[in-house]
Amino acid sequence: MSAVARLAGIRAGLSAPTTPSADFGLIGLAVMGQNLILNAADHGFTVCAYNRTTSKVDRFLENEAKGKSIVGAHSVEEFCKKLKRPRRVMLLVMAGKPVDQFIESLLPHLEEGDIIIDGGNSHYPDSNRRTKYLKEKGIRFVGSGVSGGEEGARYGPSLMPGGNEEAWPHIKDIFQSIAAKSDGEPCCDWVGDEGAGHYVKMVHNGIEYGDMQLICEAYDILRRGLGLPVKEIADIFAKWNKGVLDSFLIEITRDILYYNDEDGTPMVEKILDKAGQKGTGKWTAINALDLGMPVTLIGESVFARCLSAIKSERVRASGLLNGPTPEFTGDKQAFIDDLEQALYASKIISYAQGFMLIQNAAKEYSWKLNKPAIALMWRGGCIIRSVFLKDITNAYRENPDLENLLFNDFFNKAIHNAQQGWRNVVSKGALWGIPTPAFSTALSFYDGYRTENLPANLLQAQRDYFGAHTFRIKPEYANDKYPEDKDIHVNWTGRGGDVSASTYVV
Amino acid sequence: MSAVARLAGIRAGLSAPTTPSADFGLIGLAVMGQNLILNAADHGFTVCAYNRTTSKVDRFLENEAKGKSIVGAHSVEEFCKKLKRPRRVMLLVMAGKPVDQFIESLLPHLEEGDIIIDGGNSHYPDSNRRTKYLKEKGIRFVGSGVSGGEEGARYGPSLMPGGNEEAWPHIKDIFQSIAAKSDGEPCCDWVGDEGAGHYVKMVHNGIEYGDMQLICEAYDILRRGLGLPVKEIADIFAKWNKGVLDSFLIEITRDILYYNDEDGTPMVEKILDKAGQKGTGKWTAINALDLGMPVTLIGESVFARCLSAIKSERVRASGLLNGPTPEFTGDKQAFIDDLEQALYASKIISYAQGFMLIQNAAKEYSWKLNKPAIALMWRGGCIIRSVFLKDITNAYRENPDLENLLFNDFFNKAIHNAQQGWRNVVSKGALWGIPTPAFSTALSFYDGYRTENLPANLLQAQRDYFGAHTFRIKPEYANDKYPEDKDIHVNWTGRGGDVSASTYVV
Repeated sequence: MSAVARLAGIRAGLSAPTTPSADFGLIGLAVMGQNLILNAADHGFTVCAYNRTTSKVDRFLENEAKGKSIVGAHSVEEFCKKLKRPRRVMLLVMAGKPVDQFIESLLPHLEEGDIIIDGGNSHYPDSNRRTKYLKEKGIRFVGSGVSGGEEGARYGPSLMPGGNEEAWPHIKDIFQSIAAKSDGEPCCDWVGDEGAGHYVKMVHNGIEYGDMQLICEAYDILRRGLGLPVKEIADIFAKWNKGVLDSFLIEITRDILYYNDEDGTPMVEKILDKAGQKGTGKWTAINALDLGMPVTLIGESVFARCLSAIKSERVRASGLLNGPTPEFTGDKQAFIDDLEQALYASKIISYAQGFMLIQNAAKEYSWKLNKPAIALMWRGGCIIRSVFLKDITNAYRENPDLENLLFNDFFNKAIHNAQQGWRNVVSKGALWGIPTPAFSTALSFYDGYRTENLPANLLQAQRDYFGAHTFRIKPEYANDKYPEDKDIHVNWTGRGGDVSASTYVV
Repeated sequence: MSAVARLAGIRAGLSAPTTPSADFGLIGLAVMGQNLILNAADHGFTVCAYNRTTSKVDRFLENEAKGKSIVGAHSVEEFCKKLKRPRRVMLLVMAGKPVDQFIESLLPHLEEGDIIIDGGNSHYPDSNRRTKYLKEKGIRFVGSGVSGGEEGARYGPSLMPGGNEEAWPHIKDIFQSIAAKSDGEPCCDWVGDEGAGHYVKMVHNGIEYGDMQLICEAYDILRRGLGLPVKEIADIFAKWNKGVLDSFLIEITRDILYYNDEDGTPMVEKILDKAGQKGTGKWTAINALDLGMPVTLIGESVFARCLSAIKSERVRASGLLNGPTPEFTGDKQAFIDDLEQALYASKIISYAQGFMLIQNAAKEYSWKLNKPAIALMWRGGCIIRSVFLKDITNAYRENPDLENLLFNDFFNKAIHNAQQGWRNVVSKGALWGIPTPAFSTALSFYDGYRTENLPANLLQAQRDYFGAHTFRIKPEYANDKYPEDKDIHVNWTGRGGDVSASTYVV
């Protein structure tokens, strides 16, 4: 061993380089990875750290990791040698190719029954594929959603593991130890098969988009509709944070609105209104379209970010397109209470839609899913954590086969209680010229969902008229001429033939 | 030559099998294909017909094609031999693999400069790929949207060809001859590069989804909001068809609503309200999400079909979820006029969004696009044909670089004129409990689009707070501390570190 290599060995904390001493291995020493390691060490686990650029390993061991039960490695081989069996290797690297590359570089050094956990922001189809691929090789793969940002990683993230269920008994202790706790319960449980963990994380992010958009619409109505100063709006969010909306996002909104720049201007006023997106909200909306599930609130929230992004075009449009000037008359406090209810009701719809999507995905992809656990995992540690999720956890614990969140007594009462205020807010938004895409779509969903007979009968007639697409008959009108569950075509024009036409000439 | 083969030869109209006599060849003798052939023959072209199941060729020649300038072939080789050069071969077969298979079977019998046209419902990325692939082989590929159903194919479809532009001079005459005419102009022109033709057809279908959904919402408001009988609603659509809404879809809606079943019940009432979809609306919405363009009205229209599809769940929901009972007071006719304006304004938004998407796609995919021609192609022959599209054609003829349809004088005036009625309808829908997802999202888009300062500043602050995602400064607040066009992070909590946190505990 050369002096340099020996020095590196000492730096990496190797007294006996080949003795498996670590309970857990983590690859990828960006802040998230470092913090997860420190978190695990705090909970009594010995962790081995590895990073492709090995100088990062040394720096980490000499600084943040110093004095803790953390060792390092300078090669994948050395890393694997240091792990107790079955090896538990977590990847926190960039989603996509890097994950596959690390899996390939690990494989020669792993043995049957070892476990690879991908904790990155992977798209769930990749986790489906990796679960199957590694199962064939005798390796148990776990794709885990990790939420809560860097602070969450350090002191308690929300963890959503899915994949090869055989891995769960071997990682449960570590995962539930390092996860956030809510009422003493860890915000981590087994989600389901294959990419189910990353799938649930994706929907979590979509719901996060929705929650943020709803808060923005409420803020806009308070600011432009009621004309309130930012400080007063902050007071309103502070109050809301003590009621049904009590949540991390309402809390930080309060803090943001109280935050003034040095010149006394609320900082928020100075920030450019062009929202970025990392793509997981978009993935959720696309998946909803693919599965044919009306997850409208997340869809509108993604589109609202898109609209915000074309700022310069909006500036030109603002000079050419007019609208009404909002004028408020009546009881201001009553309207603010209506707004609280509008936000609450819309949020109920968004989560109901999210769970409809998850349920449908489980059916579509043949995943066994642990539904009560999903709400529990979101209660703490992650961005959408809230008191509200406690009520959802209760709803699914009472009835894991609950068809829809709106059918649960608590939420059923809540939405009936909220609806008058909600309708008032959507109506006022339309009359005042203040956009409420998420509030409005939530209300339209509610009204559509509870409608036995939608006007889609006319739509089916149109499709049959111009394209002979056929339709089905309503059961109450079924007879020999129009049998139920048969495709029916009507010769609308009386001009014969299977295909209908029209006299319309441009 | 065996007697059977000779007989087949005679049946296929082969006097001299190897003499190239046909101006145009068409593969795929379903009704659409047969009708396009008959249409081309009516316009003086000699067409060669081929179908994999060759008995269809014989049947066609003996029946519909009898006495017309139509010949047949029993093999791809024979088919190619009968075509004048450069060969013009149109495929009207199922989208997907069959198109690639026919291309492969054609290639050995084609020569440099020959043209293959895919007139099926192909997804545009496939047409991108095929254009490039065939260009390498010296074959000019055209992917053409064909709209108008079977009747359109027979007497004048809307044709939207794109791909290898070198092909255009060779097919222009046939295409413009058989296409629908509007004010004497053919509803067919060159769209643009690669898959641009199929792309524009896809957006056409998405807009069709939107138009149909808007009509359904108007119908629902008349039926459940005003409580009108179907016959009176038919009268309203008949009247609307003479005004700004004059279009094929309004006309057939009128006809459908006048159509009573034998027992006197309006047929529409008997039709099951579960809408089907073939996927092109979904493709448009997904593409909009991928390109980051807020094409909200098509998105909501697709989701509305999804919601209609879960009928049995809706029936259960209708028993558990209550809403208000619509009560109309005031001037009924004035409200019906408002509704006409709501439909018109929402339609303007939908087309504006559609053109935003097309413009953005051209930029994204580096396509040269013929924008005035797109509106012209939709004016006649296709499902969305209307007087309205004449105004859009005019708008883009006046200014082919028009940034947004709403910036055109005509549409600018139209939407300002319509907006009070539109707002009234959306407001009433919310208060009455009648879902208006498309009307509402259109209005929210209008109000968001014309807003210089959206609440996305708060959203950016949230993202910076919990994830250190950074933000940009509004130009008017830029200074040395906050330079323009730089990523800025604020330490919101004052607790130091790059990453912010919160005290929120569940």
